[in-house]
Formats: sequence, C-alpha cells, structure tokens
Amino acid sequence: MSAKEKHEIFLKRAIEIANLNIDNGGRPFGCVVVNNHDGEIIIETVNTMHINNDPTAHAELNAIREIGIGKKGTMMEIFTNCTIYASGQPCPMCLSAMHLVKVPNVYYVNSNQDGEPFKLSTASILDQLSKPLSQQSINIYHLPISNSLYEKWFNKQQQQLK
Amino acid sequence: MSAKEKHEIFLKRAIEIANLNIDNGGRPFGCVVVNNHDGEIIIETVNTMHINNDPTAHAELNAIREIGIGKKGTMMEIFTNCTIYASGQPCPMCLSAMHLVKVPNVYYVNSNQDGEPFKLSTASILDQLSKPLSQQSINIYHLPISNSLYEKWFNKQQQQLK
Repeated sequence: MSAKEKHEIFLKRAIEIANLNIDNGGRPFGCVVVNNHDGEIIIETVNTMHINNDPTAHAELNAIREIGIGKKGTMMEIFTNCTIYASGQPCPMCLSAMHLVKVPNVYYVNSNQDGEPFKLSTASILDQLSKPLSQQSINIYHLPISNSLYEKWFNKQQQQLK
Repeated sequence: MSAKEKHEIFLKRAIEIANLNIDNGGRPFGCVVVNNHDGEIIIETVNTMHINNDPTAHAELNAIREIGIGKKGTMMEIFTNCTIYASGQPCPMCLSAMHLVKVPNVYYVNSNQDGEPFKLSTASILDQLSKPLSQQSINIYHLPISNSLYEKWFNKQQQQLK
C-alpha cells in the first residue's frame, strides 16, 4: 500500500464519521488521530457543538482535549508522534492547538474554498489573525498593570524541580 | 470613574484569580468576562490544565466553553455584547475562539514580551499561523477526496428552517 493510499483510508474514515455526525444532528466534521509508530488509531472525534452548544467543540479540539485529559507526562509523547486526519481544513483555533501541542502532521479533505458556499470556511478568521492586534476586527488593548504573576509561577516551578 | 479605571478593576480581578490559581498549582492565567450592557461579571475562569491535563483548558477558552454550554439561541447575544479581561495576552487558539464567537472587546495585562523570559509567550505560534500552510512547522497537506458532506449538511439545515 502506498503512503497516499494509507492516508486516504484514514481520511475516508474521517469523512464517514463526519457523515454519521450529520445524521445525528451535528456539523459535517470528523477527525481521526493515528499513532505514527504503529499506524493504529488513537482516537476518533466529531464536532459536538450540537450536543451541548460548546462553541469550541470542534472535532480536532475535542481530539486534543481527550488525548490530553489524564495523561500528564505521556501526553507530549503522543502528540509529537501522531498524524491528524481531518475531514475539513482545521480552523485557526484547532490549528493553534495543534501548534501548542506540537502535532507534526495533518491531512485534510475539504478546504476552506470547498466550505465557502456553505458558510463553512474559516479563512476570514485566519486573515484576522495575520493582522497586527491593532488592525483586527476585535478591539484588543494592552493595559499594563504591575504584577508578579509570571515570576511567582516560574519560581514555584523551579522550586518543584529541586 | 473613568473608563480606564473601570477596565483596571476587572483586570486586577483577573490578576487576582490568576494569582490564586498559582497557589492552587495552576498556571498564571485568569480572565473575567463582563456584560457590556450592565457591567456585571458573567463568568470568571482560570487556566485549568493542572486539574485534568487538558491542553486546551486556557482561561479564555474555558470562559467561552462555559458561556456557550447549554445556551443555544442566546449564546451569540452574550458573546457579541461582552468584554474579556485577561491577565495574559490571549494565545492564538483563544484569540481564534474569540473571533469565532465574535467577541468585540478584549483587554489584557501581561504581553507576550512579558512572558518571553518565563517561556509563557505564544508569539511563535502566531508567527506560524501568519505563514501559508505550506511554510508552517506542522506538515499540513490538502488531500481532496470526493464527498458531499457540506452539501448534505447544508440541505439538512435548509429543510429544518422550512
């Protein structure tokens, strides 16, 4: 089996669970996370906004959350050795989360361009993030107030390492 | 009271709960979400990664999640009329989530620059997101496979509106 065929198997599975999610009243997004070492599926998730209205419950964010929960110590080993197969192009929130946990590889099927006619593109948000804070549609202000939060946290970390 | 003094009250509260979070073993981040109409606090949240190891459990993402949960129909009214006061500069994941739910105003105290010496800056992730997908540190591939997910979802939505 070629590498492309292997990727297509997992992408087709992501499409399949996204399709089931539509049948269940959800949005058309699913993802499959695969262990790069043994090629086994670690987790399959779908967009679950329809279940409890959590606006952050995208398929990929759900996957990252569920993999992380309860796995202190081993979490980064899992994330840095996995591939995420997503039915849709990851939105900037999910893409940022993937960067935060250092996922190395992502494959996706439907692009923002595919999603545009159905209002399922997040390209405009990516455009916003590419701009300086002062030019984004959100009014974002830096208002410095003297505090020692970071020093306190850092020192506590250093003490715990001793 | 001047507008600046009002903002400082909520930012100081965000610092206060971030400080308590450090005492409780957590990371130095807290946020306060305020209703723009009545000036009342809607929710206060902190980074809860230390509780269950969920890597997405940043203070702001927690706030957006908790406000959204169970509030179908009224959620967008809340988000589009609130101000988020954060002790730290929102990371790209949280900032994207704010764009997704159309939060209009954000104030923060500690910048990425303040966080840099303590490895608490997320500026490098924002740099990554500003690049084309093909140039990001994550290998991201678009692998098209024929499917009708978006049409199916869209048509189902249209039928439900009838």
